Amino acid sequence: MDTLVDRIRQGDRRCLARAMSLMDSAEPQGRRLRDSIRRHSAQVPWWGFTGPPGAGKSTLIDALLIRLRARGRRVGVVAVDPTSPLSDGAFLGDRVRMMRHAVDPDVFIRSLATHHSPGGLSDATLHCARLLELARFDPVLIETVGVGQSEVDVADVADVCVVVLGPGYGDDIQLIKAGLLEIADLLVVNKCDLPDANRLLTAVRQEFAAAAGTDRPVEVVGIEAKSGKGVDELLDRLLELDRSVRDTGRRNQLQYRRVLGEIKRAAMLTYQRALHRGLEDGAVRELVDKLARGDLSLESAVAQLSATVAGAREDAPD
Amino acid sequence: MDTLVDRIRQGDRRCLARAMSLMDSAEPQGRRLRDSIRRHSAQVPWWGFTGPPGAGKSTLIDALLIRLRARGRRVGVVAVDPTSPLSDGAFLGDRVRMMRHAVDPDVFIRSLATHHSPGGLSDATLHCARLLELARFDPVLIETVGVGQSEVDVADVADVCVVVLGPGYGDDIQLIKAGLLEIADLLVVNKCDLPDANRLLTAVRQEFAAAAGTDRPVEVVGIEAKSGKGVDELLDRLLELDRSVRDTGRRNQLQYRRVLGEIKRAAMLTYQRALHRGLEDGAVRELVDKLARGDLSLESAVAQLSATVAGAREDAPD
Repeated sequence: MDTLVDRIRQGDRRCLARAMSLMDSAEPQGRRLRDSIRRHSAQVPWWGFTGPPGAGKSTLIDALLIRLRARGRRVGVVAVDPTSPLSDGAFLGDRVRMMRHAVDPDVFIRSLATHHSPGGLSDATLHCARLLELARFDPVLIETVGVGQSEVDVADVADVCVVVLGPGYGDDIQLIKAGLLEIADLLVVNKCDLPDANRLLTAVRQEFAAAAGTDRPVEVVGIEAKSGKGVDELLDRLLELDRSVRDTGRRNQLQYRRVLGEIKRAAMLTYQRALHRGLEDGAVRELVDKLARGDLSLESAVAQLSATVAGAREDAPD
Repeated sequence: MDTLVDRIRQGDRRCLARAMSLMDSAEPQGRRLRDSIRRHSAQVPWWGFTGPPGAGKSTLIDALLIRLRARGRRVGVVAVDPTSPLSDGAFLGDRVRMMRHAVDPDVFIRSLATHHSPGGLSDATLHCARLLELARFDPVLIETVGVGQSEVDVADVADVCVVVLGPGYGDDIQLIKAGLLEIADLLVVNKCDLPDANRLLTAVRQEFAAAAGTDRPVEVVGIEAKSGKGVDELLDRLLELDRSVRDTGRRNQLQYRRVLGEIKRAAMLTYQRALHRGLEDGAVRELVDKLARGDLSLESAVAQLSATVAGAREDAPD
């Protein structure tokens, strides 16, 4: 295990790729590896990119990759695919552009599309980002689709959270404002060559100006990821934000919150498994029938089920 | 409480509306009402409609409403709005058409957009559908957005599940197939006046023909909801499917599964609340630090936290 960790630190890409596959594994080796990389957590920036399908997140990341490489940075990317392919029919094509960089030894891109990771995609994302850190990629970029509905709450994982919007949402600023204000550090309006996007940019700027005096003002940036217009300025702003995250001690808080999130999700998963074992109990059929007949309240049914689950857990720990 | 239930059964719309607001309430009155309507569960069809944003679900439901009313049926609709407004910028406009029916005394439409319902939108959907049943609406239509990512697994709630697709997903049949096969009883391709939709219909038919010999073959129907083309045939098919759900005893199984789902979600929620109380414990800080330093495995941390939670639950039951 220590050898694997050492090799990854020395830049061995094959070991890194092997370790990434182990991140999804419920086997002892995977568990041990996940436990052992936590302590190596460095002060590397993790930048999250999220937004609706079609906003151009992959195109933006591609543009940032080019510029970060030009500045001599080694860049790791974790791209989290949505759980349902229905939600984003187009992205596979968009992502091809980004994958050009996969042959660059100083870029490592990992796409996560799995549902089988223990604890879901949030944990798989965390583990992969940590491995990229361990392999001394800096920064680590995390791309997720959707806001709010996604299984991965990118704002819980990333140090700096960039929300990317494209034209097509211009009429619903009131609607999107609430969810975005909560998670965005930077709001990027892409495709600013299109009139709709420009209207959106103006409207979003007006809306967010009102929040300028709050705890966490959101900056709004207009770009054109495909031509690269505005991307250098965006990168400079990201690096600045990142310095402030480090200097104010927020990075340490964020690292604490990530580990706390891991424990929470693992505890919920452990309980869920115990619950499913409990539901196989014959007595549950009677419980459901009683509830359906109105002979039992939901509260009482849950209390009875919890007692069964707690009993089963003591009998057969997993 | 019994008076409220009686009045709803007698068709009092104001009482029905009041009861629907109570479905979201964590107060004793809301809990008692939810417990008391479970026993009134009738043999009313619950039809679920799901699919990506823009496929025309609301337009289809509007077209079905017109036809069901013409056949003398009283129709209840539960429209589940997505948790994130980002996912479907257009639907508010589409839904206006459907809302025309809201003035018809034999139609009742309830839109659920809340996040505050105990147990999430799946439970709110269940409760509202049961209330509509109680008020003798028949059938009950349930509209949800998205497949797979949605908080509401419509296939777990509805008797018959209709997946609605529109043009724009034509190239990704392989991608969408897996998720859809699992939940769809009927696959509807809408906007068949458009060439893209027609190509999609042909392609989907070819794909699903392969599944014809399986346990649960999926029927594929092409329609044009806006003009009404194909909607009468779709309605006939829905009514047939529904008869088979009733006659084969599948409806009873589904009702059992719904109540089981309620218990499961309530148990998870109860545990989650206990967990959050447990996380306020000062000892958790030390647990997180140990895990972050690599001095503790995630498994051990969860075991220690679970012990804290179980202890807290005994001290202060909620």
